Amino acid sequence: MKNVKHLKCVRCGSTYKATADATTCECGGILDVVYDYDYIKTIFNKDVLKSRDDQTMWRYRELLPIEEDTAPQGLRVGNSPLYNADKVARILGIKKLYIKDDGVNPTSSLKDRASAMAVTKAIEAGYSTIACSSTGNAASSLAGNAAAANLKTYIFVPERAPKGKIAQLMMFGANLTAVKGSYEETFELSKKAIEKYGWYNRNAAINPYLSEGKKTVSLEIIEQLEFNAPEYIAVSVGDGCTIAGVYKGLYDMYNVGLIKKIPRLISVQASGCCPINVAAKNKTNDWTPQEENTYADSIAVGVPRNAHKAINAILDSNGITVNVTDDEIREAQRFLAKECGVFGEPAGVTATAGLKKLCENGIIEKDATVVSIVTGNGLKDIESAINNCPSPVYSRNDLDEFENEFQKRGIKIE
Amino acid sequence: MKNVKHLKCVRCGSTYKATADATTCECGGILDVVYDYDYIKTIFNKDVLKSRDDQTMWRYRELLPIEEDTAPQGLRVGNSPLYNADKVARILGIKKLYIKDDGVNPTSSLKDRASAMAVTKAIEAGYSTIACSSTGNAASSLAGNAAAANLKTYIFVPERAPKGKIAQLMMFGANLTAVKGSYEETFELSKKAIEKYGWYNRNAAINPYLSEGKKTVSLEIIEQLEFNAPEYIAVSVGDGCTIAGVYKGLYDMYNVGLIKKIPRLISVQASGCCPINVAAKNKTNDWTPQEENTYADSIAVGVPRNAHKAINAILDSNGITVNVTDDEIREAQRFLAKECGVFGEPAGVTATAGLKKLCENGIIEKDATVVSIVTGNGLKDIESAINNCPSPVYSRNDLDEFENEFQKRGIKIE
Repeated sequence: MKNVKHLKCVRCGSTYKATADATTCECGGILDVVYDYDYIKTIFNKDVLKSRDDQTMWRYRELLPIEEDTAPQGLRVGNSPLYNADKVARILGIKKLYIKDDGVNPTSSLKDRASAMAVTKAIEAGYSTIACSSTGNAASSLAGNAAAANLKTYIFVPERAPKGKIAQLMMFGANLTAVKGSYEETFELSKKAIEKYGWYNRNAAINPYLSEGKKTVSLEIIEQLEFNAPEYIAVSVGDGCTIAGVYKGLYDMYNVGLIKKIPRLISVQASGCCPINVAAKNKTNDWTPQEENTYADSIAVGVPRNAHKAINAILDSNGITVNVTDDEIREAQRFLAKECGVFGEPAGVTATAGLKKLCENGIIEKDATVVSIVTGNGLKDIESAINNCPSPVYSRNDLDEFENEFQKRGIKIE
Repeated sequence: MKNVKHLKCVRCGSTYKATADATTCECGGILDVVYDYDYIKTIFNKDVLKSRDDQTMWRYRELLPIEEDTAPQGLRVGNSPLYNADKVARILGIKKLYIKDDGVNPTSSLKDRASAMAVTKAIEAGYSTIACSSTGNAASSLAGNAAAANLKTYIFVPERAPKGKIAQLMMFGANLTAVKGSYEETFELSKKAIEKYGWYNRNAAINPYLSEGKKTVSLEIIEQLEFNAPEYIAVSVGDGCTIAGVYKGLYDMYNVGLIKKIPRLISVQASGCCPINVAAKNKTNDWTPQEENTYADSIAVGVPRNAHKAINAILDSNGITVNVTDDEIREAQRFLAKECGVFGEPAGVTATAGLKKLCENGIIEKDATVVSIVTGNGLKDIESAINNCPSPVYSRNDLDEFENEFQKRGIKIE
């Protein structure tokens, strides 16, 4: 990889060779991929991008940590739509709002970007089996991408994982273990099995390449905006890998000279589980674990595994933190679906809930351009959507009854 | 619309002006859009397509029934992946197989292609409200695309519609009526309300433009295959609109000279509900209603509303009909997810179930190239996926127990 210098620990600064199966630093810190931007600038620019047919996340391969002769693996990930949401911008009182809908990825979440990278690196390193522990989108996206890449998977979930998510994993042919115990015990069993059998490790925050896959979401945003960086990008935050990836993509774009400033990140967490935001607000990396009191399951992470990179991303971008209640998340879910036609899962719309709150409190300048990322599809969690909707109007096949029922709701038929 | 000559009844041959709010023929027959291919050939060819940035269904606008100055509306629909499924082709014993995954559209089904067309035509015709009756994907895609286009919707579903589908519709802000009665009564109430209030009608088979939206799936397939038409395209068939659209796209491509032959269509229905296949097999348009005995709800259509166009499509393409049991559909759902990483809803994988059966029976030539279309995402119907999966392995956080449990299943951990 001529474009990569080395891996560097975000905690102690130690450097490592960027081998395909690298994990964490000896000190336990997370590793970051350090690029040779001077070299990259000689092979990558707007014209290169413009002439490229590849419409997937791999169109940015000069900025990705794969060998020059590696063929990307997995499903067709990336190139998600960036909707111009003028109506919502008017409601929120800002100049421009764009909604990045990453719920249309192949397994319906942004995690596909990390999983496609994981299976590509696993095959590059010569592995035929890949493993992770997760309760949600990371697991299903790994299972789907691994199935497409013809890799075996071992996946560990806590016994309490919803049946629907288990079904999706079993469908993709994962060797699935439901662990009788907590998430911590699930993680431990996966660790022991990975060590014993020598599988490729797709546990987020252990594998340094995953957030490099995730960063393609912000590379895309910048290209879709024709290299005019927005003032803000709002991101839902759980374990911290996604916001770290978003920042990394912006940092790359800045360092290769394709944007003139890095947008300020808006880090949105649930009020009931916001360890990263608490630490970032206090401008410290010394975060404290919290309980997981939110229904937005994909960001209910009391012990975030990538807090360090996430907090750096918020502070280095001169970012803003905001926490939202579950009711505010529910309201944002309905708002975004109704006003934009984008139906996100609870954690997926949390960014928009936070942006809405900031706008209502006058924190965001009226002439600002903002991007809000929706990280997962609402169909992932239909139960909570059912609980978040009014019931329809009921009527027999009778036009009078139909009209009366709408009138009772105060809706004028027209 | 310089590219459109007129609308023509598929039953009696009467022609009509192609107004934006046209419905059916006076005789009750379905109308088909007749294009001026001689004119289209002067403005549309491979080079025009190659130089076009638009990566949505609207990149084929010379072949679509919209005014030259109409701006497309709705969500970002189309450009779904066409996966090269070599492993599955080997298993089935054919030369090449491609899987077209239309479940990654914005509301997760192929119906988005019709709904984006519907909202575009509604706005072109000056309407601000659009209506339909449906139990499923047509309704949710209409609601989503209308929300994005800032149109009001009135949607009618039978009271028995699953809660999840109702939730998705309510999320998108539809004025939703759950009709106490059968689907027929639901349709009747929608008809009366549409007539009284003068809304734009998105009922499939009444609106002649919907299958023109759907045809973009085969326009894409042909372009993705670099204008090398496959021998066969397999399609799941319910009310007939999708296979009619697939044929129309191929017919267009043939008539503008971009393919040299029209692929043979494989029409796949559920054994428990196959009125179109029965008629097509007897080479007649005189079909007989059937009961709806299949769990694949999106194709459980005993009284298909577009049977005429569908049967023509099968016969005119020298197509093949095949019916599959619910168990064969379940098996195909697991097969496709496991071998390709594509998780389709039951009706979405029915085409692949049929193709598999034909291959096993030696009907498809070994040197054939085949495309199978997946019309909807498996997340649309997670309940049936749960019932279609084995349970995971259960284990405490104990490596020995983990290993024993897999051994009991006869799975060798490696």
